[in-house]
Amino acid sequence: MKNMVVKSLLVLLLLANTAFAAAPADPLPSWNDTATKKAIVTFVGEVTRPGSPRFVPAAERIAAFDNDGTLWAEQPMYFPEAFVFDRIRALAPQHPEWQGKQPFKAVLAGDLKTIYAGGDQTLLELINATHDGYTTEEFAQTVKDWAATARHPISGRLYTEMAYRPMRELLDYLRANGFKTFIVSGGWADFMRPWTERVYGIPPEQVIGSSNKTEFKLRDGKPVIVFLPAIGFIDDGAGKAIGIERYIGRRPIAAFGNSDGDLQMLQWTMDGEGARFALLVHHTDAEREWAYDRASSFGRLDKALDEALAKGWTVVDMKEDWKSIYVFEKR
Amino acid sequence: MKNMVVKSLLVLLLLANTAFAAAPADPLPSWNDTATKKAIVTFVGEVTRPGSPRFVPAAERIAAFDNDGTLWAEQPMYFPEAFVFDRIRALAPQHPEWQGKQPFKAVLAGDLKTIYAGGDQTLLELINATHDGYTTEEFAQTVKDWAATARHPISGRLYTEMAYRPMRELLDYLRANGFKTFIVSGGWADFMRPWTERVYGIPPEQVIGSSNKTEFKLRDGKPVIVFLPAIGFIDDGAGKAIGIERYIGRRPIAAFGNSDGDLQMLQWTMDGEGARFALLVHHTDAEREWAYDRASSFGRLDKALDEALAKGWTVVDMKEDWKSIYVFEKR
Repeated sequence: MKNMVVKSLLVLLLLANTAFAAAPADPLPSWNDTATKKAIVTFVGEVTRPGSPRFVPAAERIAAFDNDGTLWAEQPMYFPEAFVFDRIRALAPQHPEWQGKQPFKAVLAGDLKTIYAGGDQTLLELINATHDGYTTEEFAQTVKDWAATARHPISGRLYTEMAYRPMRELLDYLRANGFKTFIVSGGWADFMRPWTERVYGIPPEQVIGSSNKTEFKLRDGKPVIVFLPAIGFIDDGAGKAIGIERYIGRRPIAAFGNSDGDLQMLQWTMDGEGARFALLVHHTDAEREWAYDRASSFGRLDKALDEALAKGWTVVDMKEDWKSIYVFEKR
Repeated sequence: MKNMVVKSLLVLLLLANTAFAAAPADPLPSWNDTATKKAIVTFVGEVTRPGSPRFVPAAERIAAFDNDGTLWAEQPMYFPEAFVFDRIRALAPQHPEWQGKQPFKAVLAGDLKTIYAGGDQTLLELINATHDGYTTEEFAQTVKDWAATARHPISGRLYTEMAYRPMRELLDYLRANGFKTFIVSGGWADFMRPWTERVYGIPPEQVIGSSNKTEFKLRDGKPVIVFLPAIGFIDDGAGKAIGIERYIGRRPIAAFGNSDGDLQMLQWTMDGEGARFALLVHHTDAEREWAYDRASSFGRLDKALDEALAKGWTVVDMKEDWKSIYVFEKR
């Protein structure tokens, strides 16, 4: 009896719903109707349609996204580096010795040339200084404060407002189709986790990045985890494939990047069995964003572009494919 | 019009459903109706009931579980070690030099006393030997083969059949209430990930464990990730709190362990704000399982038991609280 009543009502409900249903809304309204959008929609359709020869069970629908230059802008410098320089300036009053000591002196003088001339080691020294002695909770608070106030030197917007609207739509679209979306970034995980849920809908446990070593201690009986001035893991280049294996423990079926630092992640993703998708964001829009690739010092796209072209990976032409760029723009 | 039709039908459907609804099934049927079960159900009720002063949003309902001795048995030796010894025996024909070389010689002779006398360094040397040169995919296959065939020396059951039925119910119960369940084990992540989804319903990306270092390479153009004979991370003791922060990036609200190696994970969990839950499985059932605590060489429970008793954490008395023990048992 119960079942019959419930079933009859369900049938009526479905009929009522169908009769009045509107056409489904475009899940990617900020994407122009180009071959790029079509490639994305075709892939998602194939892996989600039961009975499709390229069907992938929901649990295996892992998608990995680079952050800088893929989910938000990275010019005129990587945003995580802007954070580091801002933190060095904020900490300087507690470190009078920095006034005469490189690379701190260069940061305080705004002398980017000297900083970048020092290469990765210089940046790592600065990163260590911003972490040293902070508990994980104290550090997260410095990130939240920065994200709420620091502004991009050219747009004047909050950095988090310079997330890409089309990519945010893509993240939502994939999740609506059963994908689990991960960030796999060369940036520091502890710099991203305080705001990725709000900005991208990606929770902290799905954010993989570089990291400093930490130590656990009891401070007056209270457990704390404290950052050490020592690099633990660099999640870039080959490190992205290693990070995926270490943190996720299974191979993504889709990966999204924009630079040579993403090449191994894309190679690792594409070498798995079954349906696969690789996408590179090519920065081609000097007016609305920036145009750069093979010669850029931030987000250099050279070898990965060659491989994408040779292997038929999807390449976003930002100027042609994106109707709007940033999440702060009106559509 | 559409809305009115749909709403009316929905109301009828709900009424029909309510009128015929049976009492909800007990989600923890393998747990006796003791204070332990009551503490679990009370906690879950409080954090999930909207309006409750201890309500926790679903995204923050992170639960961390130790594996050995908490989700499956760990006597007469840790199961991950049984795997390592089995692998050394399987690899021995390719390593004739092991016949005369410790600690391999001791493994091949079944001389556990010599192995354990060597302490952690000896075990790590053996673990390195089982990983060295394997790709992550090859290694996963050795684990799958072992899990499908290796049998416990006393019960004669597959090791994975010695997962605890009450804990599997608890995992399901928490997930049904919006929790995300993680394993945080001293065992190697790559040893657990091939079977945790099947046995516990926990996907690879929610398994945190110890790990060897790896390297990414192109082998004849094909990308592979290869294990190195070097330990990368030990996820035990303070390492469990560090691992939680590194991999999950937010603090669990509930943690489940059984030994002193879980103490810092429980401390870290309990020191957060809002509703918290800590549980220790105390092995008190010499007939159906094993009885051991302060003096055991596997799963020693001494300091953590003192702290649990002092702080009022929940302690499972396996003999009294569990109606059945293993997943293979009929209820």
